[in-house]
Amino acid sequence: MEYRFSERVKSLKPSAIREILKNSSAPGIIPLSAGNPAPDAFPYDAIREISRRLLEDTPIEALQYSVTEGYPPLREHLRAYMGQKHHVGTEGDEILITSGAQQVMDLLTKTLLNEGDTVLCEAPSFIGSLNTFRSYRAKLRGIPMEEDGVDLAELERALESEKNIKYFYTIPNFQNPSGITMSLAKRKKAYELCRDHGVLILEDNPYGDLRFAGEDLPSIKSFDQEGVVMYAGSFSKVVSPGMRVGYAIGPKEVVQKMVVCKQGEDVHSNIWAQIVCHRFMTEFDYEAHVERLRAIYRRKSGILVEAMERHFSPLITWSHFEGGLFAWCTLPEGMDMLDFVKRAAERKACVVPGTAFLTDESEPCRSFRINFSTPTDEQLAEGVKILGEVAREMA
Amino acid sequence: MEYRFSERVKSLKPSAIREILKNSSAPGIIPLSAGNPAPDAFPYDAIREISRRLLEDTPIEALQYSVTEGYPPLREHLRAYMGQKHHVGTEGDEILITSGAQQVMDLLTKTLLNEGDTVLCEAPSFIGSLNTFRSYRAKLRGIPMEEDGVDLAELERALESEKNIKYFYTIPNFQNPSGITMSLAKRKKAYELCRDHGVLILEDNPYGDLRFAGEDLPSIKSFDQEGVVMYAGSFSKVVSPGMRVGYAIGPKEVVQKMVVCKQGEDVHSNIWAQIVCHRFMTEFDYEAHVERLRAIYRRKSGILVEAMERHFSPLITWSHFEGGLFAWCTLPEGMDMLDFVKRAAERKACVVPGTAFLTDESEPCRSFRINFSTPTDEQLAEGVKILGEVAREMA
Repeated sequence: MEYRFSERVKSLKPSAIREILKNSSAPGIIPLSAGNPAPDAFPYDAIREISRRLLEDTPIEALQYSVTEGYPPLREHLRAYMGQKHHVGTEGDEILITSGAQQVMDLLTKTLLNEGDTVLCEAPSFIGSLNTFRSYRAKLRGIPMEEDGVDLAELERALESEKNIKYFYTIPNFQNPSGITMSLAKRKKAYELCRDHGVLILEDNPYGDLRFAGEDLPSIKSFDQEGVVMYAGSFSKVVSPGMRVGYAIGPKEVVQKMVVCKQGEDVHSNIWAQIVCHRFMTEFDYEAHVERLRAIYRRKSGILVEAMERHFSPLITWSHFEGGLFAWCTLPEGMDMLDFVKRAAERKACVVPGTAFLTDESEPCRSFRINFSTPTDEQLAEGVKILGEVAREMA
Repeated sequence: MEYRFSERVKSLKPSAIREILKNSSAPGIIPLSAGNPAPDAFPYDAIREISRRLLEDTPIEALQYSVTEGYPPLREHLRAYMGQKHHVGTEGDEILITSGAQQVMDLLTKTLLNEGDTVLCEAPSFIGSLNTFRSYRAKLRGIPMEEDGVDLAELERALESEKNIKYFYTIPNFQNPSGITMSLAKRKKAYELCRDHGVLILEDNPYGDLRFAGEDLPSIKSFDQEGVVMYAGSFSKVVSPGMRVGYAIGPKEVVQKMVVCKQGEDVHSNIWAQIVCHRFMTEFDYEAHVERLRAIYRRKSGILVEAMERHFSPLITWSHFEGGLFAWCTLPEGMDMLDFVKRAAERKACVVPGTAFLTDESEPCRSFRINFSTPTDEQLAEGVKILGEVAREMA
């Protein structure tokens, strides 16, 4: 039979990058290309204990249908916690539990975007989100990143010139892939610019808790008294990504439409996982757990930086990063990045080519992304050594 | 701030039926309107045991990121099981694990449908699926149901006359809401008709295992050697709906596009739940469990039928049903169904008005749906008694 696909699916081309990454889970590969939390970051003792009690005491609660909006005690707790600790969420906001934060990107896009409407995003930005926006046939306009976050002049230019902009997508903390954190001044200014142009901000904050250096900065959502920001949070990096629990906090009117869309996508998110997240936050020492994570990633990022100083300098440079899971590295002028990534992969050191994170993969780019949470300490040191060798050979 | 929603979301009107159903979870309500599995149908001892071992022995496996296609051992087992037991799936087919079968409806629609394209569906049909199709701005064409399934002459007429038909959506076993099972002859003929018109069939089979009378019939997918049928299966009614695990078995070429779409929606489905489903199928006596479910629903449906014979006959009639969770009842001519449902709800007996399941809710309809799995035995008997009283008062 011949299949006639939708226009939106036809336009989703298989990525050249996927081919390069295909081997990244083969045996012997050094996985600097992934984005998995470190295995010792999972609070599995707590999850085991919560799950045991839950399935003994109230199994039906964990297994029966639930409501689309999410497990009510988790929603209530998150509202209080995010409000008190991070000043996120107002009376006019609503909270929706999603199947990972990825679903926030999906549902907001479904709710707002007509084919051809514009999404402003940081350039580079997280490929998973870009692909979600693409699946709704968004026109992506990338705003270049500077060392302290998005280029505001370019953001303003885009807000003035693009038509039908539905939102500006940003990851202000330890951005994926650049590792860059947006400065406080830029957060405020970006908020004002978008508000004044009547454009929503989609603030994606999966790594906010994973700061291992410097000072925490307020989220953009914390300034929001006018219903401008949709905040996407996630348990993937602090509890477990396999559970697929994320959440949206944003204007009631928008969230209510997202609920209707979610009903049609998966009815509700896995309820066992929602209860586990709730109990982990309320019955265990959540803050101590987060501190433990920070220590894990502080240590691992230290190994990475030390190795980069030894094997990359001065040929390969990297952006300063104070948290998250990634380092963004740039080859010297004239060096072919895709060729570099390919040669490194042949020697089993897998990184992601920077072009994967651009709105247009064919743009020139000399950067690549290293993940330091997935590899072991030894793999990390060895991988960086190989990358340094490849660069010197190509220089 | 003023929000500009997408056209697809604007067209999703809040349903009049939702208002009627809003009270259906209030205290004292007799829940004949739900669709939850009976609490004693959950294999919670097994799930508790599997989960305990899993989180003790290989917690990282249950908590780490996984692949979009689904947990490989579950996919392999389902392929073998569905192939051997139900003759579902060929060499040309692929299997995708989804976040409940609802996501199969979503992903297939996303993969195939452009705005305005046509979906053929049974009339009445499952409201959840209809709303998913609507969220992609499908044109829904309802094909009337007869006692042995869809009206084939009408199906053929629609196949000949409608433009851009992307698939025919059917629930051949114990259809929700009608309880009707499509005859073998009709299954074969519907398959041939769709194949000959180059139109896919979306075969949704959430209740197939819940037959408590009569003989099992082969699924439409079991005839499929030509890549015509996308089969949607679910663990919601046989293991747990709260886990949100379903699956699609269909032509590789289509499933591969659905995988790309799923990546953008939720990356993958909850991995703990996928492993639990796999181990439950392979390490426990799955067939004995299904037999136990059938016995539970045989007993509960018996209570319903007995109560209907006593309190409904001859005023209210119902369609013959041999499995599933629902009975479809019809009021005598001239009786206002929405008024009946409202009056019954005021007396705490909640059923779903039949109009909820139509492609056009404003069409005339004298039917309503009763669920017999959610209420207790006492609630079931009491609810039917109230419904009978209301009908006699209105007659």
